[in-house]
Amino acid sequence: MSAVLLDGKMLAARREEETLQRVNALKARGIEPGLAFILVGEDPASKVYVRSKNKACERCGIRSVTCHLPEDVTQEELERELKKLADDPSVHGMLLQLPIPRHLDEAAALACIPPEKDVDGFHPVNAGNLVNGIPGIRSCTPLGIMDLIALSGVKTEGKHAVVIGRSAIVGKPAALLLLEANCTVTICHSRTVDLAKYTREADILVSAVGKAGLITGDMVKPGAVVIDAGIARVDGKVVGDVDRQSVEPIAGFLSPVPGGCGPMTIAELMVNTLNIAEAKANV
Amino acid sequence: MSAVLLDGKMLAARREEETLQRVNALKARGIEPGLAFILVGEDPASKVYVRSKNKACERCGIRSVTCHLPEDVTQEELERELKKLADDPSVHGMLLQLPIPRHLDEAAALACIPPEKDVDGFHPVNAGNLVNGIPGIRSCTPLGIMDLIALSGVKTEGKHAVVIGRSAIVGKPAALLLLEANCTVTICHSRTVDLAKYTREADILVSAVGKAGLITGDMVKPGAVVIDAGIARVDGKVVGDVDRQSVEPIAGFLSPVPGGCGPMTIAELMVNTLNIAEAKANV
Repeated sequence: MSAVLLDGKMLAARREEETLQRVNALKARGIEPGLAFILVGEDPASKVYVRSKNKACERCGIRSVTCHLPEDVTQEELERELKKLADDPSVHGMLLQLPIPRHLDEAAALACIPPEKDVDGFHPVNAGNLVNGIPGIRSCTPLGIMDLIALSGVKTEGKHAVVIGRSAIVGKPAALLLLEANCTVTICHSRTVDLAKYTREADILVSAVGKAGLITGDMVKPGAVVIDAGIARVDGKVVGDVDRQSVEPIAGFLSPVPGGCGPMTIAELMVNTLNIAEAKANV
Repeated sequence: MSAVLLDGKMLAARREEETLQRVNALKARGIEPGLAFILVGEDPASKVYVRSKNKACERCGIRSVTCHLPEDVTQEELERELKKLADDPSVHGMLLQLPIPRHLDEAAALACIPPEKDVDGFHPVNAGNLVNGIPGIRSCTPLGIMDLIALSGVKTEGKHAVVIGRSAIVGKPAALLLLEANCTVTICHSRTVDLAKYTREADILVSAVGKAGLITGDMVKPGAVVIDAGIARVDGKVVGDVDRQSVEPIAGFLSPVPGGCGPMTIAELMVNTLNIAEAKANV
């Protein structure tokens, strides 16, 4: 037996196709959803990310605007650009591509993005709504993780989900979404003693660390749903946290890297943008 | 062997004594911390709670204002009173005693409390800052739980903490604080299958359900720190989630009900109010 691969590329394409149809319905009413990217400097990885998000916008019929600022932009100029987009009614969602150069104040810059345009779901109001169980914008990668789990067909209620990683953008919001889906949830991290003891108990295992080969087959419960939300580079190749060779024979379902959480994150970004535009139009 | 009792009454008195000293230092600079309570209707339990919080203010030298509105107050009147307190610079913290009568919109009322005066730490911005690891106002009961754990002398790093209950005001913020304290954290709830399997693994067990006798000795790991954050009434007596008779011989430390999380919640409310006043005065 070998794990069923949870094909994020296929699922993302399906989500984008659904998004395109809803976008066309909105356009028929005279509203064009718009997503703005703010990119600072020449970081090659950031440029690649923004380019793939731009392409997704094209596929979904979402108008995209990229505001590319020079490496040496001042905090004042950056904030002025962010506020301009915040005030622009044709921009439904906006996103500051991180990291930004060190001389800039990231928290102050992010604070210029109003919660209702925060397509990444990072704003304290959006994170707090998740804790408080209030509807709102959720982070894209955690949404993609939940969608991949749903693709497996495994029901979440009463299952033990173990999340490795406690970042504010993946680990913690993913744990909160799994909790909302009625899983019993355990959160592990760098200070966890005997990680394998916890992962072996997981019906659903989500790894969001960014450490190649972290999860090996002996750490996985037979038949488990394994979601690999890690990203690392080994010899120029993008890999996840999961050692596929040893995990595939044990897990029931596995999301690969690349082709798992990556494309899903971008698809959820499109859905979030559309949701904001629809809500504003009272659809 | 019998569990060491974690005396919340004693610890709360100590916190209040420290608060009084800091309040006096602030008063010497001409600033008097103020806390406002908004109470709607005649619910006997709510009146008792507000009365004990008022008394704590007296002990700590904090000026308290109680705005007692009639049972049939309109939403408009309630919001007007809340906004008045929100705009009053002599009021540093404010708190709407819940529950409020059913004809009122609780979420809309809570939204009138600005995050910087939200001493309960319930506002989405404050809940979101906790998720994002940004300093801010934390909820009182979870703070009291952490203080009781610290009193045990047991180091949290790398320990397995199991929280039962996933409310927005106790379970989830307590789990997030335990995570910040480097515990591996498991969150259980009503849909958890085989609760005892999880509780038996807990070095630190926090129960926040409100179901008398939920936790029995056979569910506790020998030597564990057990924090009882449940409140229920049995034959007119206030009891917690923990069955003391069977748990005391097994646990290493136990916070009793009454006299555990209850007085600590009130003490943390005093500390939160003072912190806001100090921050405003740039202490």
